[in-house]
Amino acid sequence: MSKIPTLFNRLALIGTGLIGSSIARAAKAQGATGSIVATARSPATRKRVAELGIADQVVETNAAAVEGADLVIVSIPVGACGAVAKEIGPHLKPGAIVSDAGSVKGSVVRDMAPHLPKHVHFVPAHPVAGTEYSGPDAGFAELFVNRWCILTPPAGTDPKAVEKLAAFWRLLGANVETMAPDHHDLVLAVTSHLPHLIAYTIVGTADELETVTRSEVLKFSAGGFRDFTRIAASDPTMWRDVFLANKDAVLEMLGRFNEDISALTKAIRRDDGQALHEHFARTRAIRKGIVDIGQDSAAPDFGRPHPDLPHSALPKPYAAEED
Amino acid sequence: MSKIPTLFNRLALIGTGLIGSSIARAAKAQGATGSIVATARSPATRKRVAELGIADQVVETNAAAVEGADLVIVSIPVGACGAVAKEIGPHLKPGAIVSDAGSVKGSVVRDMAPHLPKHVHFVPAHPVAGTEYSGPDAGFAELFVNRWCILTPPAGTDPKAVEKLAAFWRLLGANVETMAPDHHDLVLAVTSHLPHLIAYTIVGTADELETVTRSEVLKFSAGGFRDFTRIAASDPTMWRDVFLANKDAVLEMLGRFNEDISALTKAIRRDDGQALHEHFARTRAIRKGIVDIGQDSAAPDFGRPHPDLPHSALPKPYAAEED
Repeated sequence: MSKIPTLFNRLALIGTGLIGSSIARAAKAQGATGSIVATARSPATRKRVAELGIADQVVETNAAAVEGADLVIVSIPVGACGAVAKEIGPHLKPGAIVSDAGSVKGSVVRDMAPHLPKHVHFVPAHPVAGTEYSGPDAGFAELFVNRWCILTPPAGTDPKAVEKLAAFWRLLGANVETMAPDHHDLVLAVTSHLPHLIAYTIVGTADELETVTRSEVLKFSAGGFRDFTRIAASDPTMWRDVFLANKDAVLEMLGRFNEDISALTKAIRRDDGQALHEHFARTRAIRKGIVDIGQDSAAPDFGRPHPDLPHSALPKPYAAEED
Repeated sequence: MSKIPTLFNRLALIGTGLIGSSIARAAKAQGATGSIVATARSPATRKRVAELGIADQVVETNAAAVEGADLVIVSIPVGACGAVAKEIGPHLKPGAIVSDAGSVKGSVVRDMAPHLPKHVHFVPAHPVAGTEYSGPDAGFAELFVNRWCILTPPAGTDPKAVEKLAAFWRLLGANVETMAPDHHDLVLAVTSHLPHLIAYTIVGTADELETVTRSEVLKFSAGGFRDFTRIAASDPTMWRDVFLANKDAVLEMLGRFNEDISALTKAIRRDDGQALHEHFARTRAIRKGIVDIGQDSAAPDFGRPHPDLPHSALPKPYAAEED
């Protein structure tokens, strides 16, 4: 049996929420690194990571975590990345690869790069994967399988460092693509940031109505609403930072969305059934494309479980009374 | 073994798409009716229903379908309900219950009631259940289990007829609630119609960008976008009719949504992180409420399957080269 060789002797994880703890679990499962050292800002999280046993070592400071590490991955809200880079800069091992997992790349490059010494390789990354849960308990080793990880190395980065980080992500099951930071931010503004903002909005809208109670919203959510609530349950701090860091691209996409919803609103107001039908017929193709390339399940309802029919159920009063 | 007594001797199904064919399957599985006669507008659908064997009899016209039926359920786009009521009116058996499965109730009552004879009971219904698929092959017997079915009987309807239809839906696994048609339309405008309109909109927006390709939208859809594509793949004719039939309530909810998205847009533009965080933290509670009452799965990602880690994967060039 051929053992998979380790890619990095020592991996340092700064931040051990859903993403950081999933990286720890996947790297361990795949033997991708010789050892894993982890840290987190709160003592409670560090304690929990130690209990979970997903890192070989849990340390108290970011500076201590990166000592001697060959790969450093910062998985924290993007607004905090600059300060962490400043903190770890002086302690990084020459030749180390420094990366992150942030959902915005332009701001991460701008905030982190100035604090990193010339003797390390800075390769920002964004694994496009996640769930609605947060924290070290929410992670799992399979999170990145068949998902994309986008690398956005600044111009002049050593291609060998980029390829080595790509190999790491492939070993964790991901597909890897390289992109310019600004283009990444535009793509993710539409595939991730705008959907989250809209989901957060409509869930808030539904909760503030005077004419429809919260209990009614919950009970009848299977008509479509519940699909929006999943991503509206995502980590608030992470998402606050995303919208502030990717402001320009998000505002541009919001502008497009507003134009389109105005057009559909006008069609409804004018009873223009043909315009509505044409629009609704078009969007099916996108869903099919996503399922075809394996980025979603073809099972109805995302494959949500449907309970069995209660065969033993007796209709209330008619069992005895009629027929 | 106690046999479940049948509630109706003869069930007529007009329309055999996702909903109609699921009613057929569930009613048969539960022995809810003595026999099932079905019809559909297109010959191809009638042929397919006969092949599937989900009805005891498939007939060519709506008039023929309702002859001698004790329960008639019309499961077609709401815009076509008035014409069907006119067609079947003269052929209905005295004492029969006439119902539907439409997503809008005010318009269905207005369109159907005038064509129904006094000697039948009209009990409009809306099972709040579905998937993104359409047609007779898409149905399944468990579709209504633990979902809500809302009955909106006009004032003066015989309570015994209402209760008998409620018993039928409970036998199919549904929970039953009674509501005024206008209130139903307001509740569903927010829990179903607005979410569909927004999903249709954003999927269209994403597909029309010049700066981001369709291939990029599909590949990186796991960042949130894919959650919207499921309901944007729903039947275009059904949804065209819903928006035209429930225009006033949908436009009102759209107005609320626009106010809320404007407020969040302003917060982003002004870098108001506190306002964003406060909004995002609130919406988690709604998700929890939906999961707590069993209207969605608590499993991460709606319980979408996550493939196993490819343990045998070898990192590309470094396996041999380094370490």
